[in-house]
Amino acid sequence: MQLIIANKKYSSWSMRPWVLLKHFGIAFEEKNVWLAQPDSREQILRYSPTGKVPCLIDNGITVWDSLAICEYLADAYPHLPLWPKSLGTRAHARSICAEMHSGFTALRTNMWMNVAAHWPGAGATPEALADVRRVEAIWEDCLARYEGPFLFGDFSIADAFYAPIVMRFTTFEPALSAHAQAYAERIREVPAVQAWVAAGRAETQSVAFYDVRP
Amino acid sequence: MQLIIANKKYSSWSMRPWVLLKHFGIAFEEKNVWLAQPDSREQILRYSPTGKVPCLIDNGITVWDSLAICEYLADAYPHLPLWPKSLGTRAHARSICAEMHSGFTALRTNMWMNVAAHWPGAGATPEALADVRRVEAIWEDCLARYEGPFLFGDFSIADAFYAPIVMRFTTFEPALSAHAQAYAERIREVPAVQAWVAAGRAETQSVAFYDVRP
Repeated sequence: MQLIIANKKYSSWSMRPWVLLKHFGIAFEEKNVWLAQPDSREQILRYSPTGKVPCLIDNGITVWDSLAICEYLADAYPHLPLWPKSLGTRAHARSICAEMHSGFTALRTNMWMNVAAHWPGAGATPEALADVRRVEAIWEDCLARYEGPFLFGDFSIADAFYAPIVMRFTTFEPALSAHAQAYAERIREVPAVQAWVAAGRAETQSVAFYDVRP
Repeated sequence: MQLIIANKKYSSWSMRPWVLLKHFGIAFEEKNVWLAQPDSREQILRYSPTGKVPCLIDNGITVWDSLAICEYLADAYPHLPLWPKSLGTRAHARSICAEMHSGFTALRTNMWMNVAAHWPGAGATPEALADVRRVEAIWEDCLARYEGPFLFGDFSIADAFYAPIVMRFTTFEPALSAHAQAYAERIREVPAVQAWVAAGRAETQSVAFYDVRP
């Protein structure tokens, strides 16, 4: 199984399936394509028909998009608890993943992912802060209903989907409630997340635009 | 089971699960919330924590977002072929649904859904046309690989996801290849799609902004 990803420093969409695979101990080979190179798109198109990362190739099956990859893994490894077990809880987990997948534009734009940066207070536009409030509400609802430590009890696809948001919060430090802050801290302590961050910080390939405080 | 949707005339995200439910004969009660009313958001928040439609409520389970609803239905009705049967084909179907779910911004913005409008040639910005080319490539790849008549053989979630795109193409008429055009025509002939369009055209509630040719 091969996972094509971009820079660990910046690529929030790549982080989701990578952290999921690592956390659940599913073996894979990693192929990095660096962003903002003259041939980045051409490189990615060798693997993925969209020209975007992440992309997973397994036994001749090509899966593009982070959510489709996570669903594929849940489908291919039914013995692993990638989604919560009960139908209703799984529907809740899928709802918050889909919400993240198609939304939160202001948060993405103003508080991008850069696991090597620390810019407390930056990017705090009213629209981005409204997105932060919605993330906080999602987390608090899950933590209250399923009693933690992760969104749906044990670590699942939903946590992998929100891990890049935790990275953004680590960099931009918007004010968070105590429960949300504690959840973010638990995500930062997950070994797979720590491995991603360490590798991202060690990368020498950089994109100037993403390294400047907004 | 209750499905909360917005205007059939304009709400492309609402159309996906509605057409899927109708096509597969799953009984549901429909609740319409009209867009652009002073209390639209408040009305939707009574059902959905995001303030957005569609939202499905089934046996006390609330599922928001069109993709999560489709996955929930596939999960809750495993005897119905909502997704293709084989693991690899299902992964392909999920990839193109996820790609539609998070992308195609230029197409959405410039060629919005209005099932009562006919504006051939409008909205054809270079970015929107690039999105149209990508949709065409997705359809042609599927039709060649699985031999039709629908994207993955029989009608599936993937067709429900691309049905609103067919509506946009009916209104804006960007040039399409013969194969893509023929697929669009087959979608227009699906009874569930025809029922949606007829109801949308009969709606008297309108949003002025969406009724003006771009």
